[in-house]
Amino acid sequence: MTEKTNFCVIGGDARGIFMAESLIKDGHNVKIYGYSQKKTGAKITPKKDIDLALDNSDFIILPVPVTRDGKTLNAPLFDSKIDLDDEFRKKLETKNIFCGGSGTLHNIGEKWKNLCLMDYSSREDFAILNAVPTAEGAIQIAMQECEGTIDSGNFLVVGFGRIGKILSKKLKNLGGKVSVSARSALDFAWIQTLGYEPLETNNLPEFLDYDVIFNTVPHRIFDRYNLLKCCEGVKIIDLASSPGGVDSDTADFLDIKVISATGLPGKFSPKTAGEIIKKTIYKMIKEEGLWKKSK
Amino acid sequence: MTEKTNFCVIGGDARGIFMAESLIKDGHNVKIYGYSQKKTGAKITPKKDIDLALDNSDFIILPVPVTRDGKTLNAPLFDSKIDLDDEFRKKLETKNIFCGGSGTLHNIGEKWKNLCLMDYSSREDFAILNAVPTAEGAIQIAMQECEGTIDSGNFLVVGFGRIGKILSKKLKNLGGKVSVSARSALDFAWIQTLGYEPLETNNLPEFLDYDVIFNTVPHRIFDRYNLLKCCEGVKIIDLASSPGGVDSDTADFLDIKVISATGLPGKFSPKTAGEIIKKTIYKMIKEEGLWKKSK
Amino acid sequence: MTEKTNFCVIGGDARGIFMAESLIKDGHNVKIYGYSQKKTGAKITPKKDIDLALDNSDFIILPVPVTRDGKTLNAPLFDSKIDLDDEFRKKLETKNIFCGGSGTLHNIGEKWKNLCLMDYSSREDFAILNAVPTAEGAIQIAMQECEGTIDSGNFLVVGFGRIGKILSKKLKNLGGKVSVSARSALDFAWIQTLGYEPLETNNLPEFLDYDVIFNTVPHRIFDRYNLLKCCEGVKIIDLASSPGGVDSDTADFLDIKVISATGLPGKFSPKTAGEIIKKTIYKMIKEEGLWKKSK
Amino acid sequence: MTEKTNFCVIGGDARGIFMAESLIKDGHNVKIYGYSQKKTGAKITPKKDIDLALDNSDFIILPVPVTRDGKTLNAPLFDSKIDLDDEFRKKLETKNIFCGGSGTLHNIGEKWKNLCLMDYSSREDFAILNAVPTAEGAIQIAMQECEGTIDSGNFLVVGFGRIGKILSKKLKNLGGKVSVSARSALDFAWIQTLGYEPLETNNLPEFLDYDVIFNTVPHRIFDRYNLLKCCEGVKIIDLASSPGGVDSDTADFLDIKVISATGLPGKFSPKTAGEIIKKTIYKMIKEEGLWKKSK
Repeated sequence: MTEKTNFCVIGGDARGIFMAESLIKDGHNVKIYGYSQKKTGAKITPKKDIDLALDNSDFIILPVPVTRDGKTLNAPLFDSKIDLDDEFRKKLETKNIFCGGSGTLHNIGEKWKNLCLMDYSSREDFAILNAVPTAEGAIQIAMQECEGTIDSGNFLVVGFGRIGKILSKKLKNLGGKVSVSARSALDFAWIQTLGYEPLETNNLPEFLDYDVIFNTVPHRIFDRYNLLKCCEGVKIIDLASSPGGVDSDTADFLDIKVISATGLPGKFSPKTAGEIIKKTIYKMIKEEGLWKKSK
Repeated sequence: MTEKTNFCVIGGDARGIFMAESLIKDGHNVKIYGYSQKKTGAKITPKKDIDLALDNSDFIILPVPVTRDGKTLNAPLFDSKIDLDDEFRKKLETKNIFCGGSGTLHNIGEKWKNLCLMDYSSREDFAILNAVPTAEGAIQIAMQECEGTIDSGNFLVVGFGRIGKILSKKLKNLGGKVSVSARSALDFAWIQTLGYEPLETNNLPEFLDYDVIFNTVPHRIFDRYNLLKCCEGVKIIDLASSPGGVDSDTADFLDIKVISATGLPGKFSPKTAGEIIKKTIYKMIKEEGLWKKSK
Repeated sequence: MTEKTNFCVIGGDARGIFMAESLIKDGHNVKIYGYSQKKTGAKITPKKDIDLALDNSDFIILPVPVTRDGKTLNAPLFDSKIDLDDEFRKKLETKNIFCGGSGTLHNIGEKWKNLCLMDYSSREDFAILNAVPTAEGAIQIAMQECEGTIDSGNFLVVGFGRIGKILSKKLKNLGGKVSVSARSALDFAWIQTLGYEPLETNNLPEFLDYDVIFNTVPHRIFDRYNLLKCCEGVKIIDLASSPGGVDSDTADFLDIKVISATGLPGKFSPKTAGEIIKKTIYKMIKEEGLWKKSK
Repeated sequence: MTEKTNFCVIGGDARGIFMAESLIKDGHNVKIYGYSQKKTGAKITPKKDIDLALDNSDFIILPVPVTRDGKTLNAPLFDSKIDLDDEFRKKLETKNIFCGGSGTLHNIGEKWKNLCLMDYSSREDFAILNAVPTAEGAIQIAMQECEGTIDSGNFLVVGFGRIGKILSKKLKNLGGKVSVSARSALDFAWIQTLGYEPLETNNLPEFLDYDVIFNTVPHRIFDRYNLLKCCEGVKIIDLASSPGGVDSDTADFLDIKVISATGLPGKFSPKTAGEIIKKTIYKMIKEEGLWKKSK
């Protein structure tokens, strides 16, 4: 399926290690840099020198996001720092580079835009595959937070996008009672067809009497108006990326517990998340016809 | 369905509080004793005096187990102690008492056998209902322990009793690949019929290459012989009651992680577990025709 | 939810009768015309005169399609005929009319375009809701055609649109092994995520060894090239609307059984299909703000 | 798994043919007798002479039941008859014979009891495996009989034995609303745990407002008393073996449609049913240690 290739993984969290190990299992040569042996516990030994790691690589894989501070590479398992300076940039210049959140690199300066960056994190198929570990992570949090079972619980999923679809299915499969809110007539038809109680996101009922409300919509759905509808004891797990969908000051004031839960695949299921990055990169290599070039 | 009745809940953990609150919701009068307000955070105020609590009660509900030390009532949320002495016993003498693990009370002395103890924990329907929070708890532990998702995982459930049946169903419903081992031809037929891979508990395969093995059988299944079959990285969640089904010394030696997980309903889902005790007591009252007597 | 309203149902098959009965259950006044009592077996008595039926109606409901021959109303349960002539058209002129396949009426002549026709069958939410009875009908046909169970069967669903999504879910829920073919990377990601084997519609494998292939794509997918890939005994259920997705001459020549299956909701589940028309019309009335006007 | 063996299949319906073909696929030698080529349409050619068929056989497989009239072998696909006379009996005398419903053979006379008959149909694992095609057949009948979908239907399954368990699961998986009635507290606990509405078979509600009632209990559950509870339009599919669980005279009088549905695996899914017989015989051979003897 895939041809034996030389990969170099630089930086990232546990996902990078699991991805590297999975690439090796598939028969590829893999070198890693930007990890400290003792922090990863992995069998694969990080290279001590970046040039050794890059040498002879067909593809370089950078983490998602590439950088958090705009100055150094995102490498939380590394004892040292990797500066995103000209020296580093030049090393990458002629390489095929896969990365996530490429915009964070572009923001550093014009010259970085000349790199051959292929962004796996901006692809929708990547997002779909990640909806599974996200939904599972959300359920794990719900299990930890609730004093009852999912099986006997009553849940509201706000939004019927990728995560809403997978999450509502898994909650129902675990025996929970599931309402799903959306905005479009099409979504209502699907929600009804799949056996959930359909609600309108823009017109939520007066009494939100749920064990957990999962918000997946990246807008301020839970403003004062909707928070006041929440019955006592309701918990909100906010899966929307920052700044999230909940007015947390008002929630605090009303004593509604809000759990902000982002980046769940990397935090809760780094092995699966690493596999997803790998599979997405394989698809991109195939689409671009790079397997052959790389030989 | 149920007639307004006076209940008195004495001792127990969070399950007792949730049960008391649920009894009140159903319209009953409930008094509790053996809890300290600040430890429970419940709205219901514990009585300061046991006689006040018992006064006029139709039914008394004691926890499961009634006692852990054979001397005092099992009341972990109480600042003080309730001695299981003659004085206490006499207070209970003419009462209808529901309790769990009545044997622990019988062991104290002959006189305790004269009490009208109705044991909810020894009923099989109670055990069936508890298999759901047990299975969910096991899945929550698996989610915490695994670096991949349940959806992408490969699991072995050893034993196809109550917990094995519910657990394997939930794992499969979450997308996992599930093998189930059992001993009888009937169980093999059911396992196959329900879509799991059937294995023989007495003759497990040479290579147990699973993300998690859930043991539900209260015998030493995982002795040295079977532990040696476990592939690297396998985790065992042992749901069998003490002493469990795993030779933990050998497991330690082989660096196999074993998580002993008992009493999950009370620990992970006290609200659901409290509801289950309540429902079981309702059924017992109905079966014994006690609703009428109690009026 | 809905306000008491006067409906008039003219023509159509059993769906019209079930819809009329359902409207009555919801508290509306309903008159029907274009049915013969003995053919319908319904409790509701058809009006003998169209003017009696139309009199005082707020909404008129015509069938889907309105006409099959371009000359008379589609009314298979009527002993007589209803000509789509000027006289009939004038009766409808000031009315709010719901119908399916309005194009068949527009084709008759310019004047028909002036009617206030609201087409329920062209709405996507209508199509989504109808995917359920379509998928069930397809499974019923598969059960009739196959000498094995769905539970033990191996199925290919070609296309991952509305019907493909529901059908593959139901087949899997019945225990079948399901492959789904699609064209886009997004669909592959969803297919994989939902636990089916993903295939490329444009590049089907060399050996199509399935019990049943369900085609949902309205293009000639099964031309000579793909039909030659079908293993012995494969049956194709073609759910694509006419002319369908199978080269039936070649299939005949190769002795591959093809079952052309269209219009399944009306044929197999007229009661559910009638409910779906009713619900869609309710939504349209609400969207258009016609409940108020009609009072 | 299984060792190459000589099988002889004598008599039976389509299940015998599918079983013979499946045995051949597994690598065994198979001869068949008691079929007419043109009636079976099978590729395997029946022997013209029973002695040729029996010659050198390790195992003989007779149908279920072996005989319907007590005089001739059950061989509906045979143009001729096979008398169960002394001559035939002697041919079987030293053979290992698998059959179904061995009692029908024992009833012929004492001498038949000396044969080495191994009855696959009396095994409970056989019955469990057959519950799947039975449940699917019941659903197929319900689909044919109902004018709505299973997805939108409301069903009562009477009895929670093998068939009740599988049938209620499949109905729910197809989206239907399912109530299950049983008699024991344990069954109620399981029914509740699995997410169905639990009812008491001995105390069914006053209004049985279901689309279909599936009876699996071989007692006269639907006597006048319970039939009078059935709301208009209810259909009863009676899966209990003769004489079934419905007072059909009263049902006729009350205009309640009753579909008597027995022997569904053989009628609706002969291929799967043949596989189940084969698998059961394999298990019996293994349990009896006959693979080795047969060499």
